[in-house]
Amino acid sequence: MDQQLYDFGMIGLGVMGRNFLLNVADDGFGALGTDINRESVDALNEEGKDMRVKGVYTQQEFVSLLSRPRKIMMLVPAGKIVDNVIEGLLPLLDEGDILIDGGNSHYDDTNRRYEYLKTKNIRFLGTGVSGGAKGARLGPSIMPGGDRSAWEEVKPILETVAAKVNGEPCVTYIGESSSGHYVKMVHNGIEYGLMQLIAEAYDVLKRVGGMGNDEMSALFSRWNDGRLNSYLIEITAAILKFRDEQTDSHLLDVILDKAKQKGTGKWTSQSAMDIGVPIPTIDSAVTMRAISAFKEYRQDNSKLYTVVHPDEVLLKGEGLANAVEESLYFGFVVCYAQGMHMLAEASEEMNYNLDLEGIARIWRGGCIIRAGLLETIRSAYGKREGLKNMMATIEFREDLHACRDSLAEVLHQANERGVPSMCLSSALQYFEAFRSERLPLNLVQAQRDYFGSHTYERLDQKGIFHSKWDSPTVHEK
Amino acid sequence: MDQQLYDFGMIGLGVMGRNFLLNVADDGFGALGTDINRESVDALNEEGKDMRVKGVYTQQEFVSLLSRPRKIMMLVPAGKIVDNVIEGLLPLLDEGDILIDGGNSHYDDTNRRYEYLKTKNIRFLGTGVSGGAKGARLGPSIMPGGDRSAWEEVKPILETVAAKVNGEPCVTYIGESSSGHYVKMVHNGIEYGLMQLIAEAYDVLKRVGGMGNDEMSALFSRWNDGRLNSYLIEITAAILKFRDEQTDSHLLDVILDKAKQKGTGKWTSQSAMDIGVPIPTIDSAVTMRAISAFKEYRQDNSKLYTVVHPDEVLLKGEGLANAVEESLYFGFVVCYAQGMHMLAEASEEMNYNLDLEGIARIWRGGCIIRAGLLETIRSAYGKREGLKNMMATIEFREDLHACRDSLAEVLHQANERGVPSMCLSSALQYFEAFRSERLPLNLVQAQRDYFGSHTYERLDQKGIFHSKWDSPTVHEK
Repeated sequence: MDQQLYDFGMIGLGVMGRNFLLNVADDGFGALGTDINRESVDALNEEGKDMRVKGVYTQQEFVSLLSRPRKIMMLVPAGKIVDNVIEGLLPLLDEGDILIDGGNSHYDDTNRRYEYLKTKNIRFLGTGVSGGAKGARLGPSIMPGGDRSAWEEVKPILETVAAKVNGEPCVTYIGESSSGHYVKMVHNGIEYGLMQLIAEAYDVLKRVGGMGNDEMSALFSRWNDGRLNSYLIEITAAILKFRDEQTDSHLLDVILDKAKQKGTGKWTSQSAMDIGVPIPTIDSAVTMRAISAFKEYRQDNSKLYTVVHPDEVLLKGEGLANAVEESLYFGFVVCYAQGMHMLAEASEEMNYNLDLEGIARIWRGGCIIRAGLLETIRSAYGKREGLKNMMATIEFREDLHACRDSLAEVLHQANERGVPSMCLSSALQYFEAFRSERLPLNLVQAQRDYFGSHTYERLDQKGIFHSKWDSPTVHEK
Repeated sequence: MDQQLYDFGMIGLGVMGRNFLLNVADDGFGALGTDINRESVDALNEEGKDMRVKGVYTQQEFVSLLSRPRKIMMLVPAGKIVDNVIEGLLPLLDEGDILIDGGNSHYDDTNRRYEYLKTKNIRFLGTGVSGGAKGARLGPSIMPGGDRSAWEEVKPILETVAAKVNGEPCVTYIGESSSGHYVKMVHNGIEYGLMQLIAEAYDVLKRVGGMGNDEMSALFSRWNDGRLNSYLIEITAAILKFRDEQTDSHLLDVILDKAKQKGTGKWTSQSAMDIGVPIPTIDSAVTMRAISAFKEYRQDNSKLYTVVHPDEVLLKGEGLANAVEESLYFGFVVCYAQGMHMLAEASEEMNYNLDLEGIARIWRGGCIIRAGLLETIRSAYGKREGLKNMMATIEFREDLHACRDSLAEVLHQANERGVPSMCLSSALQYFEAFRSERLPLNLVQAQRDYFGSHTYERLDQKGIFHSKWDSPTVHEK
């Protein structure tokens, strides 16, 4: 009978779940799936008919056909549905079975489920999976966190399924409890930042430089061969030249400029604020998605405010293209730096004990933010125990220094023409603030002490001070 | 016996609670206070010995000496302590008594307490109080939300106690449930933004313009007589010239540039993200406080990155001062616009049914963000039912238009010299984005559809679309 049992089960056979399961089967594992939607089950059976893949309609049958300990991944929409699936499954499972949540669950939910399932002796792995539909099919980046013994059991399958870079699989044990989902959340935050930076670079090339879509596509292709090499640059090149059959023009030009979001970028910003880590480039990307949604306001405002174009274009052609490349590279480095710094602080704050080098390593392939840059980042963190913010490492210092003036100039040109560049600006401001020995926040502290007696510290003496600002006396508390 | 009973009770006799209570007594009401700290009780009795003020040591005595329905305000640190005080008090209260939380509680906590106390027939008012110690003593701005019948009962006291502007008290019923604390939270978010904008203006004057503290103090004083007239500008002028007795120099120069925060600014940014309202100037202020805390990194980085100062200073003296004034005014308008827009959206999202004109009205006096500008804001919202974002109203349009180029120039000068200006930048970027009919977020939508099949809308056709980006076909879903 045993040979009929399957190695890996999937609940949720949407495009991600189906593709992930076919990927598992590709590698010789027996892959079993189920879904409340019968058509999704049929689709799996159809697509997997020549492989060791089976779709079943009931959870009873599903559970009975898995080898023990059962290894079950859920790829269902985040939120209440995950809890419902767990509750439905629990009576059917045995102690020691392994449950993997492969969706974009919030880390608070994952912590709760991890603790809850521990009381039921079910081993839980909150697992980030990145790569989109194609990544799931051909090899995603996988970020499992939670029960370490469960990781050891699913490791052979996940390592085989994951993307490979130089033979190394893009999966590693992330850490305790919700760390896998937390790291995936920050991955998505970085993704938001990179996408908005690229969008602003495109806008500058188009509106400051007057470049056409095909010209920009060629430029992005060229950039993809250099230090900007990355999945997002690559698909941007493809998108820019993609033609719409209906109108026989560039599809990009007729796509509505209202970007939706599913929450992980927002969660990243909110969590960063909770742990006190500045990630303004990711915040700015979240903000720009919000502003994009107010399309009607923007249309009204555009009629009220006129943009004056300066006569002389100081930066154009190849010069502009190079300056934008430098700006974008600067923005990419800063965006990754913010995300990695956030992980470094979260590692302590949440007791995740993260291996930052390992995380950079498994992001090099399979996931949406994969980029050549991540090899340098991996190396920077690998060489330095305890490194938190990579901005000042020798790996990046010279480049940031060299690109900074171009970014300032691009922003100047964009500002002259009313071309918004919130994310690019934030990257420069982050850099400037982080390299400023003195910030004017001494004034903020003085104001807080003035109106709220919140006290302040001094540069020249230890202690906590409060001033009676109405009279010139300083009292130590 | 009845004449011995007191009209208003205060639990928590720290500087805010004591001052608020003395203020109540000033106006002829009988004011009773208690605190777990006996010294605070004694201090109240001492300070209020010639007034109808009494401090008592036990909650039993406290409750027995209040006229019914009892009107009790808590001014204790936000969080668990509020719950503890409520639990301790509940057995001593009668149905219909009124409990007022005057601290900076999170609106989620206030919603929970409001619902809980409703089941106990205690009328609860989550109430924002702004004005610092001095405001509490002389007249704060008060933002009560929750039980409307309770508001009617405490209205005579709160209207008398509150600051007055043109005879109008700076208090009004804000709305249902947690609306009072929500509005106070957004008030504090705006406060964060204004403070950071002022700090950046100070930094530009100092580091780009080379101005001294006394010169800047005079300039801020002058600005305070104009359209920037506000409490924060006023105290900045005072702080700039304030001298430290110990060192016989300007105190500001020796205050450590690490700004602390108590959470309300962060909560504002987090909540704005939840309801999808862009408030990047407030986010940036939160970010700059976080960056300020990383002083050691900044010190290290400052040695690694050199700032090149351009030889020629293009903007200096009176020209720079005027440009900074225009930039700061622009920043103020944008910061209030973001906060008011947030309240407009929160009003619908949370069913608060807020009166935005009324809120602008009660912010004109008593509170930390009081400013001449709020009269214009009040008027803008008063004239237009349903106005959400004031940026494009005739009240502000001309000024924003006129100040915009100065801000762009100030940012250019600051960027040339490596002077960080995150908040000022964010204000310009917000303006530019909100006046852009087209944003490059069409590319973001295309990317999302490319890697995640998230679909997109089109400018030229209704519907939801998805493209097979690998082949040039467009499918309607």
